[in-house]
Amino acid sequence: MRARPVGSVLYTGLKAVQIYGANTGVGKSVVSTALCRALRRKLPHEKVHYLKPISTGPLGDADDRHVSLFAKGVSTKCLFQFSEPTVSADASQVVTDEVVARRVQDELSTYAQQGDGIAIVETAGGVLSPAPSGTSQADLYRILRLPVLLVGDHRLGGIGSTISAWESLYIRGYDVQSIVLFQEDTYGNHAYLKDYFADRGVTTYGLPPPPEPALSPAVDEEAMEGYYDRMSKDDALDLCITELGHTHIERIAKLLSLPARADRNIWHPFTQHQTRRETTLTAIDSAYGDDFQIFKADAARTDTAPNGVVSSTGLLGPARDGSASWWTQGLGHGNPRLALTAAHAAGRYGHVMFADAIHEPAMSLAETLIKGLDNSRLTRVFYTDNGSTGMEVAVKMALKAATQRYGWDASDEVLILGLKGSYHGDTIGTMDCSEPSVYNKKVEWYRGRGWWFDFPEIKMRKGVWYIEPPAGMEQDFGSAKSYTSLDKIFDLNSRDGTAYEEYVERTLQSLVDSGKRFGALVMEPVILGAGGMLFVDPLFQHSLVKVVRNKFHQLMDNSPIQTRKPFGAEELPADAWQGLPVVFDEVFTGLYRLGRFTSSSFVNASPDISVHAKLLTGGLLPLCTTVASETIFGAYLSPEKSDALLHGHSYTAHPIGCEVAKTSLNTMQQMDDTGDWDVYKDNWTSTPALPSLPKAVEKLKSVIAGDAKINGRAPVWSMWSQEFLSKLSHMDSVDSAIAIGSVLAFTVNDPSGVSGYSSTAAYDLRTCLLNNAASGESGPSIHARVLGNVLYLMTSMTTKLEDVKNTELAVLAAIQRLSGKAT
Amino acid sequence: MRARPVGSVLYTGLKAVQIYGANTGVGKSVVSTALCRALRRKLPHEKVHYLKPISTGPLGDADDRHVSLFAKGVSTKCLFQFSEPTVSADASQVVTDEVVARRVQDELSTYAQQGDGIAIVETAGGVLSPAPSGTSQADLYRILRLPVLLVGDHRLGGIGSTISAWESLYIRGYDVQSIVLFQEDTYGNHAYLKDYFADRGVTTYGLPPPPEPALSPAVDEEAMEGYYDRMSKDDALDLCITELGHTHIERIAKLLSLPARADRNIWHPFTQHQTRRETTLTAIDSAYGDDFQIFKADAARTDTAPNGVVSSTGLLGPARDGSASWWTQGLGHGNPRLALTAAHAAGRYGHVMFADAIHEPAMSLAETLIKGLDNSRLTRVFYTDNGSTGMEVAVKMALKAATQRYGWDASDEVLILGLKGSYHGDTIGTMDCSEPSVYNKKVEWYRGRGWWFDFPEIKMRKGVWYIEPPAGMEQDFGSAKSYTSLDKIFDLNSRDGTAYEEYVERTLQSLVDSGKRFGALVMEPVILGAGGMLFVDPLFQHSLVKVVRNKFHQLMDNSPIQTRKPFGAEELPADAWQGLPVVFDEVFTGLYRLGRFTSSSFVNASPDISVHAKLLTGGLLPLCTTVASETIFGAYLSPEKSDALLHGHSYTAHPIGCEVAKTSLNTMQQMDDTGDWDVYKDNWTSTPALPSLPKAVEKLKSVIAGDAKINGRAPVWSMWSQEFLSKLSHMDSVDSAIAIGSVLAFTVNDPSGVSGYSSTAAYDLRTCLLNNAASGESGPSIHARVLGNVLYLMTSMTTKLEDVKNTELAVLAAIQRLSGKAT
Repeated sequence: MRARPVGSVLYTGLKAVQIYGANTGVGKSVVSTALCRALRRKLPHEKVHYLKPISTGPLGDADDRHVSLFAKGVSTKCLFQFSEPTVSADASQVVTDEVVARRVQDELSTYAQQGDGIAIVETAGGVLSPAPSGTSQADLYRILRLPVLLVGDHRLGGIGSTISAWESLYIRGYDVQSIVLFQEDTYGNHAYLKDYFADRGVTTYGLPPPPEPALSPAVDEEAMEGYYDRMSKDDALDLCITELGHTHIERIAKLLSLPARADRNIWHPFTQHQTRRETTLTAIDSAYGDDFQIFKADAARTDTAPNGVVSSTGLLGPARDGSASWWTQGLGHGNPRLALTAAHAAGRYGHVMFADAIHEPAMSLAETLIKGLDNSRLTRVFYTDNGSTGMEVAVKMALKAATQRYGWDASDEVLILGLKGSYHGDTIGTMDCSEPSVYNKKVEWYRGRGWWFDFPEIKMRKGVWYIEPPAGMEQDFGSAKSYTSLDKIFDLNSRDGTAYEEYVERTLQSLVDSGKRFGALVMEPVILGAGGMLFVDPLFQHSLVKVVRNKFHQLMDNSPIQTRKPFGAEELPADAWQGLPVVFDEVFTGLYRLGRFTSSSFVNASPDISVHAKLLTGGLLPLCTTVASETIFGAYLSPEKSDALLHGHSYTAHPIGCEVAKTSLNTMQQMDDTGDWDVYKDNWTSTPALPSLPKAVEKLKSVIAGDAKINGRAPVWSMWSQEFLSKLSHMDSVDSAIAIGSVLAFTVNDPSGVSGYSSTAAYDLRTCLLNNAASGESGPSIHARVLGNVLYLMTSMTTKLEDVKNTELAVLAAIQRLSGKAT
Repeated sequence: MRARPVGSVLYTGLKAVQIYGANTGVGKSVVSTALCRALRRKLPHEKVHYLKPISTGPLGDADDRHVSLFAKGVSTKCLFQFSEPTVSADASQVVTDEVVARRVQDELSTYAQQGDGIAIVETAGGVLSPAPSGTSQADLYRILRLPVLLVGDHRLGGIGSTISAWESLYIRGYDVQSIVLFQEDTYGNHAYLKDYFADRGVTTYGLPPPPEPALSPAVDEEAMEGYYDRMSKDDALDLCITELGHTHIERIAKLLSLPARADRNIWHPFTQHQTRRETTLTAIDSAYGDDFQIFKADAARTDTAPNGVVSSTGLLGPARDGSASWWTQGLGHGNPRLALTAAHAAGRYGHVMFADAIHEPAMSLAETLIKGLDNSRLTRVFYTDNGSTGMEVAVKMALKAATQRYGWDASDEVLILGLKGSYHGDTIGTMDCSEPSVYNKKVEWYRGRGWWFDFPEIKMRKGVWYIEPPAGMEQDFGSAKSYTSLDKIFDLNSRDGTAYEEYVERTLQSLVDSGKRFGALVMEPVILGAGGMLFVDPLFQHSLVKVVRNKFHQLMDNSPIQTRKPFGAEELPADAWQGLPVVFDEVFTGLYRLGRFTSSSFVNASPDISVHAKLLTGGLLPLCTTVASETIFGAYLSPEKSDALLHGHSYTAHPIGCEVAKTSLNTMQQMDDTGDWDVYKDNWTSTPALPSLPKAVEKLKSVIAGDAKINGRAPVWSMWSQEFLSKLSHMDSVDSAIAIGSVLAFTVNDPSGVSGYSSTAAYDLRTCLLNNAASGESGPSIHARVLGNVLYLMTSMTTKLEDVKNTELAVLAAIQRLSGKAT
């Protein structure tokens, strides 16, 4: 169990600033010392703290000693001292990034307890100089996101190196408050940079350069003493200190004002504003890795009260992003590589209108997807901006293909086949793909256009996996059945789908006979997300596809609808859709969310159209792809332009999105290839049934074969451990639980008996998780989302085992706390 | 008339590489010299060219002399020599960025004519060191986008400065091929950087450092001669040269393959793939400013033919982005500031799920919009991803508000009122807002749900502005009427709208009496974009809003529909919608596209809901805002969650989009404030009717008042000149023309008599414009888009007067060429 999580640092009473250097040797320590001394003079009633987290070089030359010598009354500290400029491998094992960041955080917290003050935190070397772990300075301290004072380079070449250093900080999400550099006339760096940065909202301060080193240490010391004395009265430094104070106050004031301003002018998605209070709005200052850095408005209100109380409560703190930022997050928030990738595409292209044009990012991404989907049917990539628009395109495509083959008109009412509880997006066309529900029935233009199947669900209860039929449908699906493992449920070849197939065929026959026209089968494979994290029996989805493909044409023979006949399967090219085009909405479930590139492999079926978004861009910005088969594509071919798919958003295939998506997918594929998730897979494949030696041998064989498989199938696994899931499902207040890939969901018993989206049973738990840290609990605060009485949690694909573990513990503890008793 | 436009440089026979330094003094010249000498040795049959575009410092020390001395047989050249490290203001006037880039381009072109070879182009100082104009090196040469060899910094601090320099190049869209640096063991820079960059796909080469300078020049020269001799056989340099060759071939091969790969796997928007040939697909290598850099596949095919012909045709060339990249472009392609802004938001947040959360970029953007729209009704900002989804939200909002006030049910069929030829997006809900047309009538689920008005159009014919009624509607609207200026048409107070109002009222009465329910008035103000750039008489739109607001409640009194009554205006709060909610779709027309922040001001009406996208993010990535009034917002308030607007895409209010949008809007607002567009405004406000002195006085007064207005109104103006528009409208093959803001559109007479979207009359002109450069014309090639027989052109908001002028000339010339005669 780890200690208090590391996060952004902000205290009302402590002004902290981090000193970065544009390069080594630009005078960081001189500027820091001058700043400390001037602070002592200007703000005699505040404590001044100088902190050098890591120092390299001889102890006698250490920066903290220099500060002690020339800035009396300043508390100085160095956390890690190394005698060599580069750090040994041994030391780097101990001085990890987390250790350093935590120590700095703890130190600043101590300062905050000591009363109003200022902390100067000096980094080592330049902005991207390596820390002991090998990480750059800017990446090492990013999690704290302290305001930055950048010491510019006054030497020849210093204009360029100062701007580059600033850019490196900027793309890592830092707020650079001000730039300070020695003013000299030869190169004019100060004059140039002053204008340059003023244009970018950053003030540049010029200081007189320190005296040249003399031959005698005593003379040097005297000269420096004189210099620092002059600097303590320097106008530029005085202004710089004033700005430092103002910026600190402004930052807090801005964060404090956010909820009220939002309450006034923002219309939030999926929000009932009448019952939502301003106080439940979370102001998010930044995010990093798996954490949001959230503003603690209550602490700030107490702290800024004019009662003179020492303001030492942290105003920012981490909350684990428990919804993977609405199911989008893959590679961690504030990922500098993705930020750079986005900037590169922006710098190379900006935007490229995509009709009749092609650019490398769109092309490579399309090829990466087609290869990754590994479905010979899928050859054509159509780009849109989000899951909803991508699904609109998918449905348009499918209906067009079906209407054409069956000889109908666009004006005929053609329906889709789907599953109850499905959700495909918020635009009218995709809303129409779902049956009437709380999400759509009050929307004026919603007209559900389809027929939706009930289906058996997978649930874990008291540590046992079950497949449960919908209430009252035992005669069709049989009664609930238990399984020894989730993997057994997904071992489709070992199971008998006859009952499902018969049920589907019976149902379709009666629908067709009643004169309904169908144009597509539309499904989310494995998990219906927004519908409440419903975990569908994959055999049912498999059977549905099978019957639609093998029997639908035949069933249509007796249909009362006017239809072009015959349309036997024998006329069709290989890989053509059969019966009805099958559309898989993998917007949520695809691209490793469930542990595999495509979730279609879980149901052992190859769709004719597949839609991907969310994780596609690794949690950065909107993009969606609709991938279709050649036969679907062919339905639009004609000499007439007006027969084409006349769909296209302005930013279709925007290079930034495509480039970021390509990098995201490649990164996740590489993680899969190199076994980054093996630690999780192991947890799920080590069932008591398998003795350890054969398993290891089996594993070795599969590793050699390049693909870890159990009995010839890839394993079903989750980042959430089997043990945790079992414990969770045993809790009294939990009805049932599921986990697969990075997804965990469980249903909370609602004492009032309400279930589904209208229940508020999970809200209390959600609040409890968010307040973890504030309540003095040892686990992380968790920012979770609920769907009625279902609480779900989702990791990113880079979440560390340790963080999954402490989230698991925090969840169990919170449930116990809420129910007031231990299980 | 400017000479051949500057653009990206790529020749089959000439391998060009640009040498950048991570800082001053890292050994750029030594590496360049060693490279030149090794090239001579390794590739004796190729010409080696060394080019130093700008050199500072004493002539005797010039880098080109150094290369001449130590790398015999290399052609060397310096284009601009300055004796001081910083360049005087006088010189910077002459040595502009364009002059430098053009000279380098010309020089490389000369080399290409001389047979197969290699060009080493060495920059001055570090990556971001200032050029004579003050621009950074990386920005100065960006337009050429030569592959880069970055000379890393081997000194203390060099790890950080090398990575920062690389990042500065990377975010400007450069391809950095390789990194070369002197290898030393003290700091281990080479070892660290080798791994770091390998992980990012860039090879790092370490070279032995050159000898230390001796006291005697003769000894120095001998030592250096020995060094360069060793380097010419150095393995690392040998590999570097091999990679340079491979990368060159790969780049061309990749570009060459793009159209065929796209033809195989990409489903393009708005494209009939049966008639589209692979050869008409444009491969776009990059974009910068107002130009796409397009690949000339034909030239490449000739060049790579195995016939041994010298391959000296440029494979890349600029084509003016004539559609503002599908109407999105505002601040130029590859804008480094927007790229940095995007990266900063990505680095600070990644993504933040937006339900119950607020972050600064979303908040500031909302406030910027509300302030800029200057419409007291508009207070609530809802975020989506593109115009189509934003309009879906707008229509949902309006229908909900109307249905509620009139006491209908969600299941009742409620229609919208609109204009014929409207276009609001590609999703089913927004398609339903337009009347049946070529865009939607073949879409299966399309059901036009509305009634659409005919309207009078503005057109310039033979230099005269007209308002023309739709064919056969003269009895309602009067016959065509001419105006002396466009501004007169927009002087709504001086015109009489009675006939329009009577027509609208009459029509609405009969619609309502026939039992139709209406829930919203939905319009694109001023110009209906995708409908064919239809320029609507603003007085008609003004009258429509006026009648709907003032009379609709009354008209409903006699409706046969069951409606909650009474609902007199007197019950409503101030700023409440009246009659019907008015929705303005400003996706295309807003945010300065027509020269003003909001296009609603042209029709002098304040909508209840306003939708903005495209220019919102300055042409970088998708984002959309739907801004609504408090009364519209109020329609969703209830104790029930299910009564809320249950709409929200995963990336709602993504911080990158919001931050980029805020920067874009602020930049355009600042351009407006500081008079950046005055040169265009002057062209449109200088009518012969106004003598020059009073105009100047008038202007002065208005400038003092802070707002340039004519007779109390802001002027109507365009970036396209009045003279050009007049000339264009006089062309025999042009039926009519329009221009406002950055938009120009004209209708080409179709000899076959077909008009509208199905006509192909404008295609020939489009092809002619794209081939301008290839045909040896002096004007720029122009990448334009057509809508049937309408060809339109759109500048960005930063396009320079000179570039508008040469586009105008190119358009006139192309039309003349096509029609085979001068007008």
